[in-house]
Amino acid sequence: MTSFFDTHRKLLDEALAATRTREFHSAFPEIPSGKIYGETAKDDGLAAYEARLNAAFSLPGHPSEGEAGAEISPYGGALGTKYPEASADTLIAAAQAAKPGWAAATPEERVGLLLELLVRLNKRSFEIANAVMNTTGQAFPMAFQAGGPHAQERGLEALAYAYEAMARTPAAAQWTKQEGKGEPITMRKRWRVVPRGIALMIGCNTFPTWNGYPGLFASLATGNPTIVKPHPMAILPLAITVQMARELLSEAGYDPNVVLLAAEEPGGEIAKELALREEIALVDYTGSGTFGRWLRENAKGRVFTEESGVNPVVVTGTDDFKGLCRNLAFSLSLYSGQMCTSPQNVFVPKGGIETDEGHKSFDEVAQGIAVGIDKLLGDPARAGAVCGALAADATRERIDAAKDLGRVIRASTPIEGMDPQRSATPLLMAVEAKDRDVYMEERFGPIGFVVAAEDAHDALRLAVEGVREKGAITAAIYATDEAILDEAEARFAEVGANLSCNLTGGIYVNQSAAFSDYHATGANPAGNACLTDYAFVAERFRVAAARRPVASAAA
Amino acid sequence: MTSFFDTHRKLLDEALAATRTREFHSAFPEIPSGKIYGETAKDDGLAAYEARLNAAFSLPGHPSEGEAGAEISPYGGALGTKYPEASADTLIAAAQAAKPGWAAATPEERVGLLLELLVRLNKRSFEIANAVMNTTGQAFPMAFQAGGPHAQERGLEALAYAYEAMARTPAAAQWTKQEGKGEPITMRKRWRVVPRGIALMIGCNTFPTWNGYPGLFASLATGNPTIVKPHPMAILPLAITVQMARELLSEAGYDPNVVLLAAEEPGGEIAKELALREEIALVDYTGSGTFGRWLRENAKGRVFTEESGVNPVVVTGTDDFKGLCRNLAFSLSLYSGQMCTSPQNVFVPKGGIETDEGHKSFDEVAQGIAVGIDKLLGDPARAGAVCGALAADATRERIDAAKDLGRVIRASTPIEGMDPQRSATPLLMAVEAKDRDVYMEERFGPIGFVVAAEDAHDALRLAVEGVREKGAITAAIYATDEAILDEAEARFAEVGANLSCNLTGGIYVNQSAAFSDYHATGANPAGNACLTDYAFVAERFRVAAARRPVASAAA
Repeated sequence: MTSFFDTHRKLLDEALAATRTREFHSAFPEIPSGKIYGETAKDDGLAAYEARLNAAFSLPGHPSEGEAGAEISPYGGALGTKYPEASADTLIAAAQAAKPGWAAATPEERVGLLLELLVRLNKRSFEIANAVMNTTGQAFPMAFQAGGPHAQERGLEALAYAYEAMARTPAAAQWTKQEGKGEPITMRKRWRVVPRGIALMIGCNTFPTWNGYPGLFASLATGNPTIVKPHPMAILPLAITVQMARELLSEAGYDPNVVLLAAEEPGGEIAKELALREEIALVDYTGSGTFGRWLRENAKGRVFTEESGVNPVVVTGTDDFKGLCRNLAFSLSLYSGQMCTSPQNVFVPKGGIETDEGHKSFDEVAQGIAVGIDKLLGDPARAGAVCGALAADATRERIDAAKDLGRVIRASTPIEGMDPQRSATPLLMAVEAKDRDVYMEERFGPIGFVVAAEDAHDALRLAVEGVREKGAITAAIYATDEAILDEAEARFAEVGANLSCNLTGGIYVNQSAAFSDYHATGANPAGNACLTDYAFVAERFRVAAARRPVASAAA
Repeated sequence: MTSFFDTHRKLLDEALAATRTREFHSAFPEIPSGKIYGETAKDDGLAAYEARLNAAFSLPGHPSEGEAGAEISPYGGALGTKYPEASADTLIAAAQAAKPGWAAATPEERVGLLLELLVRLNKRSFEIANAVMNTTGQAFPMAFQAGGPHAQERGLEALAYAYEAMARTPAAAQWTKQEGKGEPITMRKRWRVVPRGIALMIGCNTFPTWNGYPGLFASLATGNPTIVKPHPMAILPLAITVQMARELLSEAGYDPNVVLLAAEEPGGEIAKELALREEIALVDYTGSGTFGRWLRENAKGRVFTEESGVNPVVVTGTDDFKGLCRNLAFSLSLYSGQMCTSPQNVFVPKGGIETDEGHKSFDEVAQGIAVGIDKLLGDPARAGAVCGALAADATRERIDAAKDLGRVIRASTPIEGMDPQRSATPLLMAVEAKDRDVYMEERFGPIGFVVAAEDAHDALRLAVEGVREKGAITAAIYATDEAILDEAEARFAEVGANLSCNLTGGIYVNQSAAFSDYHATGANPAGNACLTDYAFVAERFRVAAARRPVASAAA
C-alpha cells in the first residue's frame, strides 16, 4: 500500500523548494472555478454548508458534556449550529489518552496524513468558503481564497517547515572513531522526535482558517495532540476542519481525539482555563493585544502570537499618482479594514509631495485617496464584493465613535443593499502628527488617518516609531528617491515590519503570499511569531537519542 | 582579498555535513600533541597563562569603571588577575553603540569572522587549557580537550546551525505571478536578518568554554552584541576568549564592544541586573536550577538554560560485568563527578542481576563498581589525572555531609599528593528505593547512590520518574534483554534524556561528541535548551522583507 507520505511527496517537496527560492508557487488553485473544482462544487459546497445550519454538528467519539453554538452571520441570521461542548479537564484527558499513539507515529506518517488532510480540505473549499463568509463577513471571493486554498497553503508551508526541521536529524547513524592505533570504536545511534505535550490553537473571528492552520499543522506534524479553540463567532470553519481531521485519523487507525474542538459561546473562558494548564505545552493565538499579553505572561506553555498593530503607509512621492490612490483605496477598503495587514495610518508631508501629475498638496493627496475609494466602491455590488460585512458589532461602534477624531476627508457609509449595522465603507480623516493618541492606537476596521508630517523623513520617522511602540505586520512606502527607499528598508527592518514599496498595480500591502512572503516577523509588538520560519516550528518538538556500542566485528 | 568566510568555508561545510549525518567528525585535533599544535605550543601556552597571573588583564577600548578578579586555583593559590569592571548601564550602552555596525554585516561576514576566531582559539588551546585547569580544577588532559578543541567544536556546531538557519532565506528573489491572461506581475523581494538585541551569556564554574561557546557563537553569528558574564571563579578562560574576539573585531573594522566582559567577584549580582533589562533579548545560562528558574521567570529576553539534574544508570543485566564495573567506575570518577553528564544514581534490582560471570547480588554489583573505582584510582598520579580537583568548597562540604545518607559502599578519600580540601574520590552508598529524598536530589560532585529496586522494570520506572521530576542530561542502561532496551529507549525519550546502552568499553555516558550527540534535549527540568538544534538558534534573529514591483519590461 502506498503511504500518504509517498502519495503526496511532490506536494511537500515543491512547497519546500518554494520556501527556499521564495519564488511564486501555488499548491492549491485560488480561483473558485468549476473547471478546477468540479462543475457541481459550488452548489455542493453551498448545500453542504446549509445542511450544517440549525443542526447538531457531528463529531463521533468527541467528548461531550453539553452543546454550544451562538454564531450569527454578519450577512444576517443565526447559524443555529450546535457543537459538542466539554470542559478543559475532559478535553485534556482525551488529548492525553490520544498522545502516545500520535507521538509514536513517525514524522513521515504524521506529515503524510496531514498532507492528505490538506488535499481533502482543498476539495471542500467551497463548503469552507461559505462557512468562512457567514462567520467572518468576508465577501465570497475572499472567503474562498483566504479561507480555502490560501489557508491550506499556509498550513502546507508550516507542515513543510516542521517536516524539514524534524528530518534534519537522521533516524540513525553509525559513528566510528579511531582512537590511537587500536580497534576503532563504533556506536550505533538512533534519534526520535519527542513532542512537547498538548497544543492549543486559539482561532480568531476574521480569518479562522488562514491564521489558524499554520499553528495547527505545525503542532500536529510534530506529534502534539491539538485542541482547537475557535472564536465563539467563527466556530464552523474550524469545526469542519476538526471533523475532517478526525475522520482521517480514525481511518488511519489513530485516536481521533488527536484533534479536539473546544467550542464555546461568547463570554466563555475556556482558552484561559486551558492555557493555565501545565499539560498545554504550545499555544497559538491570533487576536487582541490584551489577551495576547495575558497569554504571554500567564500561559504555561510556549506561546506564538499575532496581536494588535498599527500598519503605516509613508507617502513621500510617486511617479504614478493615480496608481497610488487606486492601490491605497483598495487596501483601505478590502474586507472593511478588518485584516491584520490593513493599513491604518498614511503619513504625508504637510507641504505635499511631487508626483507624475506635478506637486500635490497634503489635502490633494488625502482627497486623491478618498476619490479612489469613491470610485472603487461606487457600484454597490462591487462595494459589497470588496468590503464584505463587519464581523463584529464593536467595529460598527468604533466607526461611529471615530468620526470626531480628526478632520473628516471621507465619511463612512453603509453599503446599499446591505445591513447598515454590518456594512461600512472606509472613514478617512486628516490629523496632525501631534495627535498621537488618536492614530497610534489600533482602530480595527475601515478607519484610516492621513497624518501630516513635517517632511518625508519625519513621515518615515513617525511611521517607524509607531511600529516600534505599537507594532505592525505590514508597512508601505511610496517614494521616487532611492535614498529614501533604502532608508525605509533599513528602518522598517530594524522594527520588524515587512515593507512594500511603490505598490500601484495589482499587488496590495494587505496581501501576503504563502511560500514567499513571511507573514509578520515576530520582532515587534504585533506578535512574537512569524508565519512560517524555523522559530515557528523548532520549539514544537525535541529530539532524544539512544546510542550503543557495536561489536567491532559488526562494524 | 579573500574573505574569512571563503577561507574557512570548508570548516563550515564539513561541520554542517556532519550535523546532518551525525557520523564521527573532528574539526579540531583533541590530542595535546606538539606534532599537531607545534613543538613549543605546550611551553608557550603555559608561559602565556603564567603571564596573566597577578596582572591587569588588558582589554583595549573596553569600558572600565574599576577592576575585579578573585579567582583561586583549585590546585592552590590566587590567580591575581584583575579584569576591567563596568556597571550594567555602561556595558549595555557600549553594546548598544556597537550594535548597528554588527547588525549591518552580512551573515557571511559575521560567520566568517567567527570561524576565524575559532581557528585562532584553537591555536591558543594550550594557554586556554591552563586557564581552564586552574579555574575549574579539571586535570590538564580534560582541560585541554573539553576546554579547547571540544569547546571550539561546540562553538562551531552552533555557528553552523546559525548560519544554516539564516541562509535558508535567500537575500533576494524575483516573484512572478500570472494572473488571468494579462501581463504577469513581478515583484523584487529582499530579505535581511534582523538581530534580536543584546545577548547575555552566563558562564559556569566547571566548563566555562564548553558550555559557554554555543550560546556565544550563536548569538554573535545572528548579529547580537554579546555580554559575557563568567562565573566569578572561572573568568580567565572566557576573558581570553573575549580578548581574542575583540582583537579580531577591531582588525576587521568593527567596534570591539560587540563582545564585552562582565567580570565580577563572588557575591556580585550583575547577571541579575543585566537579565532584568529590556535591552537583553537573549540569555544563555549554565548552572544551578535555582538561578535557572529565576532567569526563566524574570529575565526579559529569551532564556536558554542548562540546569541541575540527577542522571540515572539502570543496571538490569550484562554480558560483560567487568566492563560494566570499569566503565561506571570511570564515569563516577571522571572530574570527581562535577560534570552535568556525570551519573549519580545506579538503579539495581534488589535480587541482583544475571551476568557473564553468573548471578550477581545487589551487593556484589555495588561492590563491583566500588572495586572498579579502587582499581582505577589506585595509582595517585592516575587518580589526579582522572578526578582532577574540586572546583568549589561547597562540593567538599557536600561530600562530608553525604556520608550518613546511606550505607557506605565505598568511602571518599583525598588523593595522595593533592590538597585534601580540594580532592576527593567517589563516595558510593547503597540506599532503598523509598529513600527518594536522599537520591532524587542533585548532589553535585563525586557522590553516587546504588538504589535497590524491586526488579528490572521497577529500576527503569524509578529512573524515568527521576528524570521527569528532577531532570537529567544523560541516562544509561545495562541490559541483555532487547525488550528492556527498547522499553528504556522509549521511556527515556519521553522524558527527554539521551540514553547510552551497555557502555563497557572506551565510551562513557559523560561524553557527548560535537556534531553527533546532542547535549541535553531541553525537554526535562535539567534545562530548556539543547546543544545544538534549530530551536537553539532560530529565535536569535528575525527576517524582515522589502518588496517592490518590477516594471514588466524588466521582468
